[in-house]
Amino acid sequence: MTLATSPQSTQTSSDANQQLDTSDVPAYCLQLAQRAQAAANAMTRTTGATRVAALRAIAAGLRQQAAAIIAENAKDLAAGQQAGLSAAMLDRLKLDDKGVEKIATSVDQIADQPDPLGEVIEGRVRADGMRLQKIRVPIGVVLMIYESRPNVTADAAALCLKSGNAIILRGGKEARHSNQAIANVVRDGLTQSGLPTDAVQLVATTDRAAVGALLQLEGRIDLAIPRGGESLIRAVVEQARIPVIKHYTGLCTTYIDADADDTMAINIAINGKTQRTGVCNATETILIHRDAAQRGVLKTLCEQLAEKNCEIRGDDAACAAFAKAKPATDADYDTEFLDLIVAIKMVDSIDDAIDHINTHGSKHTDAIVTQNIAAADTFVARVDTANAFVNCSTRFSDGGEYGLGAEIGISTDKLHARGPMGARDLTTTKWVAYGAGHIRQ
Amino acid sequence: MTLATSPQSTQTSSDANQQLDTSDVPAYCLQLAQRAQAAANAMTRTTGATRVAALRAIAAGLRQQAAAIIAENAKDLAAGQQAGLSAAMLDRLKLDDKGVEKIATSVDQIADQPDPLGEVIEGRVRADGMRLQKIRVPIGVVLMIYESRPNVTADAAALCLKSGNAIILRGGKEARHSNQAIANVVRDGLTQSGLPTDAVQLVATTDRAAVGALLQLEGRIDLAIPRGGESLIRAVVEQARIPVIKHYTGLCTTYIDADADDTMAINIAINGKTQRTGVCNATETILIHRDAAQRGVLKTLCEQLAEKNCEIRGDDAACAAFAKAKPATDADYDTEFLDLIVAIKMVDSIDDAIDHINTHGSKHTDAIVTQNIAAADTFVARVDTANAFVNCSTRFSDGGEYGLGAEIGISTDKLHARGPMGARDLTTTKWVAYGAGHIRQ
Repeated sequence: MTLATSPQSTQTSSDANQQLDTSDVPAYCLQLAQRAQAAANAMTRTTGATRVAALRAIAAGLRQQAAAIIAENAKDLAAGQQAGLSAAMLDRLKLDDKGVEKIATSVDQIADQPDPLGEVIEGRVRADGMRLQKIRVPIGVVLMIYESRPNVTADAAALCLKSGNAIILRGGKEARHSNQAIANVVRDGLTQSGLPTDAVQLVATTDRAAVGALLQLEGRIDLAIPRGGESLIRAVVEQARIPVIKHYTGLCTTYIDADADDTMAINIAINGKTQRTGVCNATETILIHRDAAQRGVLKTLCEQLAEKNCEIRGDDAACAAFAKAKPATDADYDTEFLDLIVAIKMVDSIDDAIDHINTHGSKHTDAIVTQNIAAADTFVARVDTANAFVNCSTRFSDGGEYGLGAEIGISTDKLHARGPMGARDLTTTKWVAYGAGHIRQ
Repeated sequence: MTLATSPQSTQTSSDANQQLDTSDVPAYCLQLAQRAQAAANAMTRTTGATRVAALRAIAAGLRQQAAAIIAENAKDLAAGQQAGLSAAMLDRLKLDDKGVEKIATSVDQIADQPDPLGEVIEGRVRADGMRLQKIRVPIGVVLMIYESRPNVTADAAALCLKSGNAIILRGGKEARHSNQAIANVVRDGLTQSGLPTDAVQLVATTDRAAVGALLQLEGRIDLAIPRGGESLIRAVVEQARIPVIKHYTGLCTTYIDADADDTMAINIAINGKTQRTGVCNATETILIHRDAAQRGVLKTLCEQLAEKNCEIRGDDAACAAFAKAKPATDADYDTEFLDLIVAIKMVDSIDDAIDHINTHGSKHTDAIVTQNIAAADTFVARVDTANAFVNCSTRFSDGGEYGLGAEIGISTDKLHARGPMGARDLTTTKWVAYGAGHIRQ
């Protein structure tokens, strides 16, 4: 039984599931990395079918162990209440039957996807007969550092297994019982399927020094992905000697063009801002072309936002159009509110809108609403963003919505992966050349 | 005329071609980066045809200005001789008619390639009609830091222009007249073609502080590519706050399998080791399966290497097979000799060979010689390397040989680009979504 071997609810000095001594943090982290390296190496001997079978076993295990996972989650919730976590944080932490089923479904969806490994990205035959191929291969060992959502434990593990990687999971302290219960199910699924159990390891100590120690392990850990608040991500980047893929903030903008369909524009802007506010793909700034503003879109938009209890911080035009708008400060256009607050500004041209976004945005997701092809093309080509949207809400910027099954994170970096990251983004490439004794003259 | 505005041969405190004051190094570097950002932004308005026209103008300019470039190069050679540069370094520095023509040809080849920008890498239509595309876009501003070869100035500039990026070039002091002459031709070509001249800028000061200052410009420079000796690259990585793509060393291995064709194996190993020794894709270690060794391949290989004046540092088996072999130390298997020296070792199995390579190699280029399909497949799947070769010499690991026109470098990193990097490797991606008023429920 999985949960029979789960750790005690009080913190212990040894790692019950992984049988490692956690008291010497650097030594413990090195052991985790060595086991992960060995597992990653063993993963190169596996086939896609085995990896899919493991994911199926994990999904089944999650469903079978739902009650036990929820019981462990209750311990985290109780501790969180005692520690005075906010209602929003407790909500993110909470798992019920529906929540566990959602996690299991996500694992199944990741299993269903085409195998990214071995995909031939490009290839050719040289004039001398040598065959060249660029193929997808696993990255190796991934370190995931995240906060309170326990579903990340399963999502990240499943995406890494699908792509043939080993993963070291470092979850938030407040979710540690939930994470351990889920990780135990995942590791049991690996063992049952003949995959290396250490392909998924959960860091068993809550000592903060473990993050720093792991981030030093250049040559052993290939990639770190921090997921959480900006301060967590900045701390990871500061300490890391290994590559990090990240996004700091989601300062997303919706631009209403001169040639927008007015009703569509208002709906998209309101959906982007208010459908869910505490998320990285929510709209924070709305730009509106002078022509659209002058024909009444600005006024109607402000009224409808106010009806949704959204505070409006506007430039002179917005304040003139809507009396209850507060004057925006410069800082408002650089703020990810994550709340029912929006910054609004009128612009004279699409170029001004693009300049504003490229200066103040966080290169996450930015949308234009327009019926004009040239405007849409210009916006898509010139906005420096991971996700450029035409006539749809910024809220669609999400791995699940993109059909990636789940996402290990959304990258606002430009290197390696950009936007929602699925299993394919956890691969690197390898050039393979097949000769027949070719030597260089 | 281009060269009329080239700087004096003595170092000046202002940048004649770019009209910037270089005396305050951090301020100068910030100005370079700001100009590069503005140029990168302007590049998003250009078409592939314009970028190709600019490359054609540059190639033509290089040919027209060949005599002037060679005259500037002569100043570098004279200074280098006076400074006591080695014959090998002077050789790398030297440009003659053939050398300039080779540079121009390379620019033409880069122009000939398909445009990487706008390529749709993946895409689909969601059930609700929203169209999703992942397309290639420029990275933005690239910083190239390199040593003595002046051809890198043109190669790197051409690859960045092809891919819609702006580049800041920081060449070696010893090539500064040559680099400035080439950069002037490139910038003239840009101006003539209506592209932003500042898409290519050469750092005009030889002050070392400029490298450190540029590497701090997170958010302004998107990527640094150092190309040169290991110490240069380590110094860049230490200082950088921006992403770096690099390769430290090329410790390449050729493994002769039990089922190798013996003559082919010997030819490939000797070619890999001796065809050119001072390059990153030369073979440094030869592993040989016990069966192949015992049927005489080890002895013949050692004899033929010795005939090429190659020093052999071997394990017991190699020393027993060939009396003139010196006993290898542990360090020999971790050394990139870049010389007529080879480390040789007998292994008991392909797994031992793979373990040796994954432990001691530098993940650059590694070859197997075998007639056995299973052995080849195992090697390709399990060797953790940027370039896995079957039955061909490691010397083929090169952007030109791969058909990339030229390479901006060879990455032994796993993230973003791996192996020889051409224009396509200087792009990132952008998700584009086209809706018709889609909002999230």
